[in-house]
Amino acid sequence: MKAFNKIAIIGVGLIGGSIGLAVKRKRLGREVVGVCRHKESLQRAIQAGAIDRGTLSYKEAVKEADLVILAIPVTQIIKMGSKIGPYLKKGCLITDAGSTKEKICREIEKTVPREISFVGAHPMAGSEKRGVSEARADLFEGAICILTRSRKTKSIALKKLTAFWKKLGCRIKVLTAQRHDRIVALTSHLPHLAATQLVKAARESLDWTSSGFLDTTRIASSDAEIWTDIFLTNKRFVIQALDKYIEQLRLARDLIRKGNRKRLSAEFKKVKRTRDALRK
Amino acid sequence: MKAFNKIAIIGVGLIGGSIGLAVKRKRLGREVVGVCRHKESLQRAIQAGAIDRGTLSYKEAVKEADLVILAIPVTQIIKMGSKIGPYLKKGCLITDAGSTKEKICREIEKTVPREISFVGAHPMAGSEKRGVSEARADLFEGAICILTRSRKTKSIALKKLTAFWKKLGCRIKVLTAQRHDRIVALTSHLPHLAATQLVKAARESLDWTSSGFLDTTRIASSDAEIWTDIFLTNKRFVIQALDKYIEQLRLARDLIRKGNRKRLSAEFKKVKRTRDALRK
Repeated sequence: MKAFNKIAIIGVGLIGGSIGLAVKRKRLGREVVGVCRHKESLQRAIQAGAIDRGTLSYKEAVKEADLVILAIPVTQIIKMGSKIGPYLKKGCLITDAGSTKEKICREIEKTVPREISFVGAHPMAGSEKRGVSEARADLFEGAICILTRSRKTKSIALKKLTAFWKKLGCRIKVLTAQRHDRIVALTSHLPHLAATQLVKAARESLDWTSSGFLDTTRIASSDAEIWTDIFLTNKRFVIQALDKYIEQLRLARDLIRKGNRKRLSAEFKKVKRTRDALRK
Repeated sequence: MKAFNKIAIIGVGLIGGSIGLAVKRKRLGREVVGVCRHKESLQRAIQAGAIDRGTLSYKEAVKEADLVILAIPVTQIIKMGSKIGPYLKKGCLITDAGSTKEKICREIEKTVPREISFVGAHPMAGSEKRGVSEARADLFEGAICILTRSRKTKSIALKKLTAFWKKLGCRIKVLTAQRHDRIVALTSHLPHLAATQLVKAARESLDWTSSGFLDTTRIASSDAEIWTDIFLTNKRFVIQALDKYIEQLRLARDLIRKGNRKRLSAEFKKVKRTRDALRK
């Protein structure tokens, strides 16, 4: 992969900062410019070595950039996509790190000029923590990164961005935005709601939590705004996922109520085998 | 605390083994005898230093014991409680490590002779792993251990067993068995069902799991039989807990469906504050 001359990272938090660190370590870009709304965050990102320089102006950052990475919350990605369009140079690539893809891809494909190529990305890494101080060059090592393909996707852009995300350490899967959103509704958005609503259901007894409770609810500490955005840009599939989950909980309730030891035990054994087969 | 002359541990898995290791390290008993159904497990427990000797006969083990610890699944505790009664010496103390308490306490208090004192215990430690090979002398360090008190509980027995579990590293809380069962239904049994049913709901998409999914479902790898026992001996409160949880999930579903950004974000912020205040 040829290094990019200028990479603009819009949003230098955990994800944007980690991309910057990995780009610098692996020499994937000659110059990395960070954009964010607060001078202090840019200072911290420069000190951390995640960007070469910072600016509060997205116009200045994306000017002459070969690659623009949108590492901000989902609804901000959509807005930013339409704002930067006029300032991009011909042939510029855009990618993002948003957790939902259908709305982002539809909106950005609508608003950016035709000579610009957008390929949506969702690197499935991160944690309940925030900020460039938590950023790590190896954050994406081994993580799945889903890239989106639509009828408008240019194969050369997809090829270049596959190479880029791979260099960051990701294992690449290419899906339609819709298929992506249906999958993560189950594997990421639903677990988040499972955790937050568990904290709410158990709130009267929280002096008595064991390590199991803490594991199960860890992601309930994630940022509220980011997740509100995620749920509202993936409504349909999140609701479908919740319905499936409630159905499964009702099934367990029914077996417990009836005292059906054999079925219960068989169900849990099957689940254990499934879960054991995943990574720890 | 005066050391016990002879301690019998019935069940030398993760919990029984860890109790044995801590008893030996802290010199809480002169002789520790382990009981279990398989010779190989006894051999492993001896090799691990968790017990001084092992026997397949619970009669032999409890004979002349000053303290008997039942570290087996809940329904086995209930059966074992009625079997060992005739072989215990006067003044012997019994405790257990079962995850539900109401049924255990009721049955054991009914079946053991009057000169024997039982105090139910639930050390809230452990993991999804099993067996004496996973046992650690410090497993209980800092863990809450709930001891049960009923009208039949003798205060001298409660005092002695409080001292014993404290020496193992536990922070002691004394509750009625019923109050215990209501609390753990929310903080331990519900999270378990939240995890197992999440694995089931997401099963079609398990090639795409992130670290959040793995954290949230870790306890779904626990032993199926042990947990079937737990749910069936705490039916009423587990069903109440499930109903609360489903209600909370429906609430979230409703806010997402309506696109109520303000309420959603406020809810998640509140949950985040609550979760942040707990240990990691």
